[in-house]
Amino acid sequence: MGELVRFGVSMESGLLQQFDELIAKRHYVNRSEALRDLVRAAIVENQWEHGTARTVGVVCLVYNHQTGDVGHKLTHIQHESEVQVVSSMHVHLDHHNCLETIVLRGKPPEIRQVADQLISLRGVKLGKLVMGSTGQGL
Amino acid sequence: MGELVRFGVSMESGLLQQFDELIAKRHYVNRSEALRDLVRAAIVENQWEHGTARTVGVVCLVYNHQTGDVGHKLTHIQHESEVQVVSSMHVHLDHHNCLETIVLRGKPPEIRQVADQLISLRGVKLGKLVMGSTGQGL
Amino acid sequence: MGELVRFGVSMESGLLQQFDELIAKRHYVNRSEALRDLVRAAIVENQWEHGTARTVGVVCLVYNHQTGDVGHKLTHIQHESEVQVVSSMHVHLDHHNCLETIVLRGKPPEIRQVADQLISLRGVKLGKLVMGSTGQGL
Amino acid sequence: MGELVRFGVSMESGLLQQFDELIAKRHYVNRSEALRDLVRAAIVENQWEHGTARTVGVVCLVYNHQTGDVGHKLTHIQHESEVQVVSSMHVHLDHHNCLETIVLRGKPPEIRQVADQLISLRGVKLGKLVMGSTGQGL
Repeated sequence: MGELVRFGVSMESGLLQQFDELIAKRHYVNRSEALRDLVRAAIVENQWEHGTARTVGVVCLVYNHQTGDVGHKLTHIQHESEVQVVSSMHVHLDHHNCLETIVLRGKPPEIRQVADQLISLRGVKLGKLVMGSTGQGL
Repeated sequence: MGELVRFGVSMESGLLQQFDELIAKRHYVNRSEALRDLVRAAIVENQWEHGTARTVGVVCLVYNHQTGDVGHKLTHIQHESEVQVVSSMHVHLDHHNCLETIVLRGKPPEIRQVADQLISLRGVKLGKLVMGSTGQGL
Repeated sequence: MGELVRFGVSMESGLLQQFDELIAKRHYVNRSEALRDLVRAAIVENQWEHGTARTVGVVCLVYNHQTGDVGHKLTHIQHESEVQVVSSMHVHLDHHNCLETIVLRGKPPEIRQVADQLISLRGVKLGKLVMGSTGQGL
Repeated sequence: MGELVRFGVSMESGLLQQFDELIAKRHYVNRSEALRDLVRAAIVENQWEHGTARTVGVVCLVYNHQTGDVGHKLTHIQHESEVQVVSSMHVHLDHHNCLETIVLRGKPPEIRQVADQLISLRGVKLGKLVMGSTGQGL
């Protein structure tokens, strides 16, 4: 990431006061860390909008493991996938419901396609794709 | 908004370089303006999350004016509404389809309720609520 | 849009009950209208994700008309733009602040580019792009 | 979830055709499953908007484990938290960067507060909260 650079920012006093209140509420240690987080989020959003560089996505699924053979199908899609399935975590929410988080590496359109396949399965009640990052350059 | 205050921000050189590329692409004149926009967006998001202060929302609707009496119903809801309907603009997209933007003032939950009433009408094909701001303090 | 087609949908009774509560709260007249709205929103989202077909976007801006010559710059960008600027509405929020909604026609990446130019102007405090639709086929 | 109920939905033929294309692209087995997914997503969104019932959230973090003692702080916040931290998964993205998914149970505002604490830590480069569900009633 290279050395730390310091530069000046100008902001109206009223806006700065509101920002200071917001970052206190969100537990930031200082303005720089809060601004860096806003900047990193904007960069990652732009990376996903363009979609040409390899990145990381997280698919979060809530499903009923007793519906059909959803468990096998989830595993099958992950093994057949052309994106790299790095790791997954399974949580038993109750007797019927499971939550699974699956970390995928690849280009955004490829990650989206695998996410669509997982989310559309019968038995999967809720599915969301988190547009993540490798952290490189951030 | 008060006087302009200047303060220092520290950022890793690699992150700063990516940010500079992004703000050039988005046509910002300098880092301060880009950072102020990120800060203002975060503050407005927080204001809507809390929802206790009066603010401004914009409802955008696409509808078929030939479906039932959707035009009359849209007008009726706006006149009966307890939030202040400031203004609206009507655009003829084609022979059947219209786009309407409606500016509402009130507290976030009140604005949401009117937006829900407008969006759920038969004939309204697409409806979105933009969480805006009065601009005060920003 | 063609004739009205009727088809059967199966849903667990518990899920259907929650859906009925939600659509009552949102003022829908019946399940079909609520489901059509969900379907239309999903189709429009997909159209914007792909971005090859001409569509309609709405840019909502809050700005301080006394900052520099933001008003002239907003007009200039709209006139120079290669996307079609259909119409705009201007609302005086208070002595300083204005809200403007601008309707643009073009392909999603072109609309985004003009939106970026408008939103990044100094004086523009808040800017949002609503991914709309021509209504055709919906 | 109770027995499966079947009911009729009416939709314009042109809209239905576009929907059929979209669900084929997203790998859905049939219209009912696709519509159930849209309905479940709308219900979960509404649950988070209201925020009074206990639910499940997933926090996804990308961080540099070499920045300060971010690892210890992440663990400390999770142990001190009043919401239930169900489980977490740690993925080594490269020599410096880690991705962590953390499953939390509690009411939406409580989950948000813990998420804010985790996301605002120095060393955490990217943090997102996924508004999940226990799956009950869906």
